[in-house]
Amino acid sequence: MNETLHIQQSHRSIRSYKTDPVSDAMLDAIVASAHRAPTSMNMQEISLIVVRDAERRARIAELAGGQAWIAQAPVFIAIVVDFHKTDLGVRRTGQTQIIHESMEGFGVAAVDVGLALGAMITAAESQGLGIVPIGGIRRNPQDMIELLGLPPLTFPLVGLCIGHIANDAPQKPRMDISAFRHDERYNDAGYPAAIDAYDATLTHYWKEVARNEGLPWSEALASRLHTIYFPQVKPVAAMQGLLNDK
Amino acid sequence: MNETLHIQQSHRSIRSYKTDPVSDAMLDAIVASAHRAPTSMNMQEISLIVVRDAERRARIAELAGGQAWIAQAPVFIAIVVDFHKTDLGVRRTGQTQIIHESMEGFGVAAVDVGLALGAMITAAESQGLGIVPIGGIRRNPQDMIELLGLPPLTFPLVGLCIGHIANDAPQKPRMDISAFRHDERYNDAGYPAAIDAYDATLTHYWKEVARNEGLPWSEALASRLHTIYFPQVKPVAAMQGLLNDK
Repeated sequence: MNETLHIQQSHRSIRSYKTDPVSDAMLDAIVASAHRAPTSMNMQEISLIVVRDAERRARIAELAGGQAWIAQAPVFIAIVVDFHKTDLGVRRTGQTQIIHESMEGFGVAAVDVGLALGAMITAAESQGLGIVPIGGIRRNPQDMIELLGLPPLTFPLVGLCIGHIANDAPQKPRMDISAFRHDERYNDAGYPAAIDAYDATLTHYWKEVARNEGLPWSEALASRLHTIYFPQVKPVAAMQGLLNDK
Repeated sequence: MNETLHIQQSHRSIRSYKTDPVSDAMLDAIVASAHRAPTSMNMQEISLIVVRDAERRARIAELAGGQAWIAQAPVFIAIVVDFHKTDLGVRRTGQTQIIHESMEGFGVAAVDVGLALGAMITAAESQGLGIVPIGGIRRNPQDMIELLGLPPLTFPLVGLCIGHIANDAPQKPRMDISAFRHDERYNDAGYPAAIDAYDATLTHYWKEVARNEGLPWSEALASRLHTIYFPQVKPVAAMQGLLNDK
């Protein structure tokens, strides 16, 4: 296994950081990797907001639902869907952009956000840093938009904490790869058995890492997915002009 | 710069492949990297469909709008949003999943698709292989769903061609990083100048690579983004149960 594959396959989320700063050189390399990540049709409809100010990180931690590691890690990066940037380009040709009103537009932008996020994670981990992605950036999106100074046609989709690792974390097991990889055609015949096995695996894992409150996969998902756990995403995105209804 | 950063920052799309197969070991490593990529709340709501059969690749090339490299590259991987898998888990607890009806659910799944896609790209490139992401998988989504045998609550969001490089490709310039990275707060003051400069850079680039039909960024975007270029995404996703309206 080469070094890059090793880094990717060793991935785990870190929620305990030293206060030591991330050097400018390390941070610049992380941002450069995201800048070179693929982007659909060369749209480049993504922007990063690098937040290092401690007070701002503390406020983001609060808005994200009280995630202490955001205040602790020296760098937080918000990844923003930025159809304002593309709109400026489209307008100068005399055309009118409408892609931001569509599910296609939002979906492509979200995939590009994932590409940028993944690029930064791998770049950070290749330099020995720890990371944890932050979905809680969407918990109070209107406040987050104001904090980050985001204009219409933009939306903060996901965040990333980056820092030097204080306490390392174990790698959480995944469901068996047979429930992830299909060859030629989709085949869910093995899903029930894979889910059963994974529920048992996670129950064992939580005990091993002394998190007895940890739930099996099915129960953990059910507790979130029976509801729209971040109900402000749709209305606030609509107020930003990302209508998502075409 | 370490090897991983070098791979990431050397990324370019390849559209000319040898017919040599990708070995099982190389392919397994690519899939393993995607399997270990981060996934929101450990949902694991992503599946891969690995297509190696030549006839099926030829059909996908056609459905994607006539992209010859899909038929040419020995491996095509469709990355699928899979809320059917999570639904099976949620149902066994007696709860009812509704996240697949929301913009939050679709957005998170699309970010996870981007994470899996990026992981596979970096894993392939680290092994010397070439890749090109395929958004055209959404051009005729109903036909793609039938070809891949996808059940309700799933949707094919993006594809990836992987193979040994026949003719290498140059790396397309990106807009200046000042229009990508913001510190502390969003600031678009530099966007007009960055777009002007990038339009000129791309015009020069297209001449250099002898693609005189290539357009400046603004014009290329305007030609696509003034319309919903894949209008079947929203209605077909809705038919699959991904309503996206909460």
